[in-house]
Amino acid sequence: MFKKFKIPDATIGRLSLYSRYLREADDKGIETVSSQHIAKATGVTPAQVRKDLAYFGEFGTRGVGYNSRELYSYIMKILGLSKRWTVAIAGAGNLGRALSQYKGFYERGFDIACIFDTDPKKVGRKISGIEVNHISTLADNAKAHGIELGIIAVPASVAQEVADLMINAGIKGIINFAPININTPDNVMFRRVDLAAQLEYLTYYLEDSR
Amino acid sequence: MFKKFKIPDATIGRLSLYSRYLREADDKGIETVSSQHIAKATGVTPAQVRKDLAYFGEFGTRGVGYNSRELYSYIMKILGLSKRWTVAIAGAGNLGRALSQYKGFYERGFDIACIFDTDPKKVGRKISGIEVNHISTLADNAKAHGIELGIIAVPASVAQEVADLMINAGIKGIINFAPININTPDNVMFRRVDLAAQLEYLTYYLEDSR
Repeated sequence: MFKKFKIPDATIGRLSLYSRYLREADDKGIETVSSQHIAKATGVTPAQVRKDLAYFGEFGTRGVGYNSRELYSYIMKILGLSKRWTVAIAGAGNLGRALSQYKGFYERGFDIACIFDTDPKKVGRKISGIEVNHISTLADNAKAHGIELGIIAVPASVAQEVADLMINAGIKGIINFAPININTPDNVMFRRVDLAAQLEYLTYYLEDSR
Repeated sequence: MFKKFKIPDATIGRLSLYSRYLREADDKGIETVSSQHIAKATGVTPAQVRKDLAYFGEFGTRGVGYNSRELYSYIMKILGLSKRWTVAIAGAGNLGRALSQYKGFYERGFDIACIFDTDPKKVGRKISGIEVNHISTLADNAKAHGIELGIIAVPASVAQEVADLMINAGIKGIINFAPININTPDNVMFRRVDLAAQLEYLTYYLEDSR
């Protein structure tokens, strides 16, 4: 099912960063950028930039650099972002509400189409213009809206149950914010986001200066 | 100031995953684990586990494996998590509230001590037992509470201003959730968390199956 070859997650993360810089450069009217420019703006080495791009072919002109707009479009295509994606969020608590209003999703091509919860106080209310539906309607709504990606923002105790509902509804990619591991079949792409782990990138370096 | 050598961010991320698995194994009474066990539980190769650990010395006994509790403690020490950290959150909107209630922080040794905002409707209210203070009191509160880490959960338009307040207050590590780049001096550790980028790890692989 997944034809693409496995490249390091870190490369995908950096491609995402490069594309954001290239978009900015293009918006500012900068037509050509070098691997040095991209590297400096994104905090990696120029060699790393070239290595990451080399996974996907040959880009740019030696001694000249890359055309900002072309490379941006190409990376967006690699990341699967040349078309928009339709997303459902499970959980209308603080995190679900924050995610449903997060502008960064729309900017990168993600449209939040549905929000689900079980709380009678939340079901029927609107968040950013989207009605919160009962989680029991997930399959029907996923079909009606063509949901491709799911975000789990429910308590850990019900995260697996919600993931199973998403998988049964045919959702092929799931991000889990609940602090628990979830079992998913091999044909579903799955990623756990651990917010505490983000702080640990800092503490590793700060430990010595305490 | 930062004495530690630079290791790949991806290694830090994996050490964080390994430590979570080791904690679980120890909780279940599993005294010894192999690099295969760690690899399987965290979705990497056994060679990668050994390579990541090799940055920090020699661990385990050949043919036997690692003592779960010892390796857990050692990795927590590497990550700077053998003592607890005191954290401030700027922004008491949905994201700030979600973060201030996120149980995963406490479990990994992060104590949210202060929450700041400018909205008169939010200042003075309590979230998870912590009073929201006006952002103008950040320096005083940071000193009083010994704040070491800051989390920016304010709109992009004021994120740099808030970062500057944190830096001036002596905060040495900052996580930014606002969808904008922020300038920080070299002696401050900084990390931007882009929630959209998390979805892009999925779409890269899902693109071909659309």
